Amino acid sequence: MSEHSNESTIAAANVALAHVHSERLREALAALAHFGARADGGVARQTLTEVDLQARRFLIDRARALGCTVEADACANLFFRRAGRTNQPPVLTGSHADTQPVGGKLDGAYGVMAGLEVIQALNDAGIQTERPIEVVAWTNEEGSRFGPGCMGSSAFVEPAKLDAYRQVLDGEKTSFGTALDRALQAIPDVPRCALQRPMAAYVELHIEQGPVLERAGVPLGVVTGIQSVRWFRVKVTGVAAHAGTTPMDVRADAMAESIALAHRLMAEARHYEDRQLRLTLGRWVVAPNSINTIAGDVEFTVDMRCVDGELLARFAATLQEMVASHAGRSRMVLEPVFERAPTHFPSAMTALLEQACASASARAGQPAPLQLTSGAFHDAMYLAGHCPSAMIFVPSKQGISHNAAEETDHADLVLGVQALAHAVTRLAGA
Amino acid sequence: MSEHSNESTIAAANVALAHVHSERLREALAALAHFGARADGGVARQTLTEVDLQARRFLIDRARALGCTVEADACANLFFRRAGRTNQPPVLTGSHADTQPVGGKLDGAYGVMAGLEVIQALNDAGIQTERPIEVVAWTNEEGSRFGPGCMGSSAFVEPAKLDAYRQVLDGEKTSFGTALDRALQAIPDVPRCALQRPMAAYVELHIEQGPVLERAGVPLGVVTGIQSVRWFRVKVTGVAAHAGTTPMDVRADAMAESIALAHRLMAEARHYEDRQLRLTLGRWVVAPNSINTIAGDVEFTVDMRCVDGELLARFAATLQEMVASHAGRSRMVLEPVFERAPTHFPSAMTALLEQACASASARAGQPAPLQLTSGAFHDAMYLAGHCPSAMIFVPSKQGISHNAAEETDHADLVLGVQALAHAVTRLAGA
Repeated sequence: MSEHSNESTIAAANVALAHVHSERLREALAALAHFGARADGGVARQTLTEVDLQARRFLIDRARALGCTVEADACANLFFRRAGRTNQPPVLTGSHADTQPVGGKLDGAYGVMAGLEVIQALNDAGIQTERPIEVVAWTNEEGSRFGPGCMGSSAFVEPAKLDAYRQVLDGEKTSFGTALDRALQAIPDVPRCALQRPMAAYVELHIEQGPVLERAGVPLGVVTGIQSVRWFRVKVTGVAAHAGTTPMDVRADAMAESIALAHRLMAEARHYEDRQLRLTLGRWVVAPNSINTIAGDVEFTVDMRCVDGELLARFAATLQEMVASHAGRSRMVLEPVFERAPTHFPSAMTALLEQACASASARAGQPAPLQLTSGAFHDAMYLAGHCPSAMIFVPSKQGISHNAAEETDHADLVLGVQALAHAVTRLAGA
Repeated sequence: MSEHSNESTIAAANVALAHVHSERLREALAALAHFGARADGGVARQTLTEVDLQARRFLIDRARALGCTVEADACANLFFRRAGRTNQPPVLTGSHADTQPVGGKLDGAYGVMAGLEVIQALNDAGIQTERPIEVVAWTNEEGSRFGPGCMGSSAFVEPAKLDAYRQVLDGEKTSFGTALDRALQAIPDVPRCALQRPMAAYVELHIEQGPVLERAGVPLGVVTGIQSVRWFRVKVTGVAAHAGTTPMDVRADAMAESIALAHRLMAEARHYEDRQLRLTLGRWVVAPNSINTIAGDVEFTVDMRCVDGELLARFAATLQEMVASHAGRSRMVLEPVFERAPTHFPSAMTALLEQACASASARAGQPAPLQLTSGAFHDAMYLAGHCPSAMIFVPSKQGISHNAAEETDHADLVLGVQALAHAVTRLAGA
């Protein structure tokens, strides 16, 4: 990480911050939200769909109007580059422009438009930075059309992943590879750049998608890391039978045994609530799913998260023991589905973001930033393996996201971009 | 109830029993099973479908070949009548010929073909009974195409129900009334008879659809009653939110709170297991049903049954209290869906069936019949409100029913028909 803490850089960072323009940001967010706009106020812009390609063209044109050069890599990640005094590796900011099938106007889009607003603020302030600054729009962060999520950022960091990603099919049997080729063919005027290019640092500004900042009454959060996650599937196989004719003592009731296990697991999780263990049993498939038939088959998912990777491993072992020692009449099998170790952002980065957020907050008479961890995945999770990375969060009203009702006070959105402008200028040097 | 216990009637009953023909019964069951036969050995013959109409024509022709007159009532229930010496109200036996979308060869069909076999046995034995004997094939016992089940028998007993039944639509928006009219138009040669006609008695022979007789190693069961049933729907409304970003202490997790309630309810039910309380939580609808989203809405069903109606009422009150005193962050509502008081068959009828079963079992060197209650609904439940009624059960292998694998040893099927022949002859007088 190249950190510039000399006085002239800090002064430039404060000037850049002061040039962030509230109404321009409002217009920019609204402009991107037109692509895939829904009547309910939400946005439907799944990755590499027609409307996403239109949005990409809009971003390219807008970045060029700001004087940026535009390049795309083999995963169709778009990079908008503001030249620096040198050709050293750039400071990268941005996020993703794709949405869930029904998403809001801010998830991802905010980080991309914030990056472009920072460039415009630097232009207006007449600040030239030592390093180039690039704004990225990562491909397929959401993972809803093609799984898994964060394909763009993870392929950027680890290009070997791209081959397998290209084979993934969407619900209409279109491969990610085919969709990717179409997206690149649609922008023949955009030169190709390399995956895995060196970057000086990555800063991602994002809505929190949770209730912590709002509840604390604090407009800016410095993200210290991303929780570790384990996903499991519990499969319970009993015997479907008539609810009226089958005595209780001969049943192999897959739902009754699932409930017993789920109850034990939730009770166990309660012991670790103060250590930020989070447990969600979100998806249930019951067969035959009939009011008067004992369930013969139940499948349910276990999503467990904790910023403490060791605690999470211990909790996963507890689940494994519970399933292994299961004494009911149904057969119970535990399948691991996904696992991701925690991400800890480097303290030099979080300290720099802390100062950037504090500058923006103090100027607005707002409380100092809060430190928090992210329970959601973000592209920054992958970038953290490539260059010094960290994130800034702004509040989400009622913690709602992946929903048309996703919302953040505009004043908080502006504060976030101001903090980003400060941080990016510090990192790029002026 | 007209019971004939004089010696000549008992002698005739034993003669009728002895004329039940094993191979003829086997052929008859196989013949009906052709209508809607599936490759897996099961039968798909939902009520009033094309294949059900073909099966009805087959039954009419077969009954006429046995010398029966055939009539149908306004609910398309078919009655095959063997004349008696008098025109007193007939003794009725039979069951239903419709199946679940995927049913077996025996559920319902066995009782209908058993009735026709009893008539053939009486013919072969040259026995004339005092009362007429009628075999009935009730319309829509299963309730899978048009709900609720037992439409035919309940409309027979309470004709006022028919108007509402006629409005019920199937999945393709065909009304029960339209289907009924077509079925009656397809048999212009069959005269109409009245709903709610007086009957001397009703005896229904059916497979148990549960494991009790098989586990006891007893081939015949006398059904003393049908359990009381209550159905409820529990609706739990929380807030869907991100599994990663939402701390445990602010969640309104509809699934977590459903599991807690379900667990308490199942624990409570365990206290009454020896009193034959049965509890099934069979149907679950979880939304948005995603691995990494806290469930915002859960609906699950509660099916509770007990032959002790008072115990069941107390248990239902316990559920109501649990829901009312629910202290979680989700909203919880309990909706009653269905309720049916227990049916207790009259002891004179069960005693007569006990003797009939004992006669058949003793002759075959089999253990004496078992008394048991039915956990499933049957047409006899409604007939019990119209005339003295009762049921005989034969074992179901592994208790399996509503399934292609539904099976009963043929020797047990024969024993059941022998007992039925004995009972019907006793009731009709000879």
